[in-house]
Amino acid sequence: VTTAPDVIDLNADLGESFGAWRLGDDDALLDIVTSANIACGFHAGDPLTLRRTCAGAIARGVSIGAQVSYRDLAGFGRREMSVPPEELTAEVLYQIAALDGIARTEGGRVRYVKPHGALYNRCVRDPVQAAAVADAVRAYDPRLPLLALPGGAAVQAGQDAGLTVVAEAFADRAYRADGTLVPRGQPGAVISDPGRAAARAASMVTSHALESEDGRQVPVQFRSLCVHGDTVGAVTLARAVREALERAGVRVASFA
Amino acid sequence: VTTAPDVIDLNADLGESFGAWRLGDDDALLDIVTSANIACGFHAGDPLTLRRTCAGAIARGVSIGAQVSYRDLAGFGRREMSVPPEELTAEVLYQIAALDGIARTEGGRVRYVKPHGALYNRCVRDPVQAAAVADAVRAYDPRLPLLALPGGAAVQAGQDAGLTVVAEAFADRAYRADGTLVPRGQPGAVISDPGRAAARAASMVTSHALESEDGRQVPVQFRSLCVHGDTVGAVTLARAVREALERAGVRVASFA
Amino acid sequence: VTTAPDVIDLNADLGESFGAWRLGDDDALLDIVTSANIACGFHAGDPLTLRRTCAGAIARGVSIGAQVSYRDLAGFGRREMSVPPEELTAEVLYQIAALDGIARTEGGRVRYVKPHGALYNRCVRDPVQAAAVADAVRAYDPRLPLLALPGGAAVQAGQDAGLTVVAEAFADRAYRADGTLVPRGQPGAVISDPGRAAARAASMVTSHALESEDGRQVPVQFRSLCVHGDTVGAVTLARAVREALERAGVRVASFA
Amino acid sequence: VTTAPDVIDLNADLGESFGAWRLGDDDALLDIVTSANIACGFHAGDPLTLRRTCAGAIARGVSIGAQVSYRDLAGFGRREMSVPPEELTAEVLYQIAALDGIARTEGGRVRYVKPHGALYNRCVRDPVQAAAVADAVRAYDPRLPLLALPGGAAVQAGQDAGLTVVAEAFADRAYRADGTLVPRGQPGAVISDPGRAAARAASMVTSHALESEDGRQVPVQFRSLCVHGDTVGAVTLARAVREALERAGVRVASFA
Repeated sequence: VTTAPDVIDLNADLGESFGAWRLGDDDALLDIVTSANIACGFHAGDPLTLRRTCAGAIARGVSIGAQVSYRDLAGFGRREMSVPPEELTAEVLYQIAALDGIARTEGGRVRYVKPHGALYNRCVRDPVQAAAVADAVRAYDPRLPLLALPGGAAVQAGQDAGLTVVAEAFADRAYRADGTLVPRGQPGAVISDPGRAAARAASMVTSHALESEDGRQVPVQFRSLCVHGDTVGAVTLARAVREALERAGVRVASFA
Repeated sequence: VTTAPDVIDLNADLGESFGAWRLGDDDALLDIVTSANIACGFHAGDPLTLRRTCAGAIARGVSIGAQVSYRDLAGFGRREMSVPPEELTAEVLYQIAALDGIARTEGGRVRYVKPHGALYNRCVRDPVQAAAVADAVRAYDPRLPLLALPGGAAVQAGQDAGLTVVAEAFADRAYRADGTLVPRGQPGAVISDPGRAAARAASMVTSHALESEDGRQVPVQFRSLCVHGDTVGAVTLARAVREALERAGVRVASFA
Repeated sequence: VTTAPDVIDLNADLGESFGAWRLGDDDALLDIVTSANIACGFHAGDPLTLRRTCAGAIARGVSIGAQVSYRDLAGFGRREMSVPPEELTAEVLYQIAALDGIARTEGGRVRYVKPHGALYNRCVRDPVQAAAVADAVRAYDPRLPLLALPGGAAVQAGQDAGLTVVAEAFADRAYRADGTLVPRGQPGAVISDPGRAAARAASMVTSHALESEDGRQVPVQFRSLCVHGDTVGAVTLARAVREALERAGVRVASFA
Repeated sequence: VTTAPDVIDLNADLGESFGAWRLGDDDALLDIVTSANIACGFHAGDPLTLRRTCAGAIARGVSIGAQVSYRDLAGFGRREMSVPPEELTAEVLYQIAALDGIARTEGGRVRYVKPHGALYNRCVRDPVQAAAVADAVRAYDPRLPLLALPGGAAVQAGQDAGLTVVAEAFADRAYRADGTLVPRGQPGAVISDPGRAAARAASMVTSHALESEDGRQVPVQFRSLCVHGDTVGAVTLARAVREALERAGVRVASFA
């Protein structure tokens, strides 16, 4: 797990529009984050959106990550699926390849991989699916880092596959005392107040610890901080987080 | 347009299964053809099928082509769609990239691009969609040849985009006197008798002409011959075609 | 074609969200319109959205129409498709049935059918697809009216199938002198100024004529007026149209 | 739970083709079974296939059941999904309604509901998803029976919802000693030998007990017997089962 005390990456989910449906303010977020987790078409992201989002990221020097997902447009990739590992590896591979090829036509490359939504959460606790995802990354390019929640099965699977695993924390999600996320849908799971998320982010990065929902300080090493792009006021919150980090003397820079 | 009198490529559509649905005998066809037009997931081809079909092609030295399509699983890509050109370019690009990335994990590469079904037919007569497809190929890799019906808009669009255009003829489809295909669904459009298709193929390749449905000899230059993988008895027909070509002294080899 | 001089229906497209993607302000529009063209899942509308939109329409006494479409989520049903008629009939039937069954669980029924987007436009000029749609309506329930653009193939096909055809005009779309719509994407095709659309609507309804883009008055009979739900400021525009109609002494009421 | 000692229903999955992909020999199976679990478009079954399969069932007096599934064409509904209950209810409702509307245009009706694949298995052990499915059936028509595995959560959920629950057994699947199915993919899970399946079926129906994989006789009450339509030799096996039942003096008749 790669960590660094005084420099932090800021990542957000982008490219999550689909056809006529718009989601998030990609242009505004690209001015704030240092890494863009770009959807790959399985939970969101039509090809033209991917291409434009890649172009926007490259123009601003933002690193492109493949935000791979279950094949679930109707559920936005938030519904856990029991996909057999060989199928899952192929599905993840397909997504990385599609986004990377599009990024290359715009002069960039996919620089890392981050599972989305239910796949991300499943990979925290399911070694089989985590290994299937890691296998896809290794097969495509073993130098691509895997962005993962510290302490979960994805970290182990990534390391077993010989990948660089980059740990991340969440500026706008509540944590349980064991370092796992409070599931979406539970009260307090998502922190939508920009000031609170910003103060929390600065504290997490400088103290190398996160505060759990019951008020405990949980030591944690992470190299990237995630802000969500699809919450109400996402841009305001992301900007507040970045400004708070910079005020606290933290350097905001991509890990890739 | 690249042509050659004494050597011919044999191409077929492969990788067209989807999940539980099987279509065609890919393994048998890979022993016969020299170029595999592999589906890319938009009209057929789940990612695991793509990966296995790529592996099978590479193991046999068969060239891999990206068989790009409209996004139409329910219609198997056979329903023409009015996709705006910028969208179509991005959709084609996504498909080429996905297949190429998968091919690379198996030790190969996409070597050419061939539009599928309704997109193929539309590109024969619609310069706008043909240019959109050619733009995707050029953006991805301008050295990739485009496989196309001689005389159509796709040839012109490919040449305008600076691509190598490889002309193809069909062993098992009837032609009209103007060199266009008799549309599927019309009587006699598909030639399913292996002996007749084989004799026709050998004649076309050695005489550099095709016989139209009204019995005229139409001179034509082509470097590849297509046999369909999804007709009844596809394998038998393809084998008969290859054997007839070899008996006629034609060398069967990929153009890529 | 059913017409009436002093009473007008106001219809809008609703239920066009899909999973995580929200589109339009259905609740606000349901307070304004008298007929809701509810998406059926093929271009938009996940089942839960359909159920909630039906419940909202029924609670307000708004008539429910099945807004049937090509199967094209990625293109929002705006990409014309060459669907064979027997397939198209089955696809339209499937959509009407799904929505009607959901409406019935909420205490209502589908009261009419209106094709969406590219299917609507195709049915103005393609008698084969128009007949395929009309066949689906007749097969499902021949008493269901078909909402259609006056003068097009859909009107003829509906009448040939023994259906009641209800003519509609558009408050927020520009017309050509022949009574057809200026295609979306052309300058001036969509009227987004609420005041202009409202004045235009009141004039159209009371004068039984529409003004074409070149300023001619084109006499036209229609029983329903469409306002779009997905344009910027859709609610404001729809409210302005309704108020202008009522100020002009027109009674706003469903035809169903 | 409805049971009967001397009469048995024979059900099979039908209508599972999708577009160009054919699966199963529906015509042959419709001559053998008394209940057809017809796919509803979410795991298989394009609308035209549904319409034709309904027509075939009605012509032969075979009862039509809605074979409802997760939305998962790529996985053929065999991948378990964590769908929130309200969404699942709406998705199931949509499917029942679509199939019932199509059946009505052919002169029939949906007579029962049977979850497919992973949804079926999940409903054996997950009371929340089972209740979501039962809610959809009750909302659509509380007189529709739910076909379910004896002893599972689906039975309880159906009864709680006031539905008639019809228990079924499997002629061609191995059982564990607790009466649950040996999961597909495990050795011996599927019985493909027609003679063995037929003998087993006759024994199960006349002895009111099934034989578990470890050779124990497990008493069980069931009113329907499932034969699979998509196994190799499905028709031969189904015919053998029916003949064995009739030879054993059992009356084969629908429960609906």
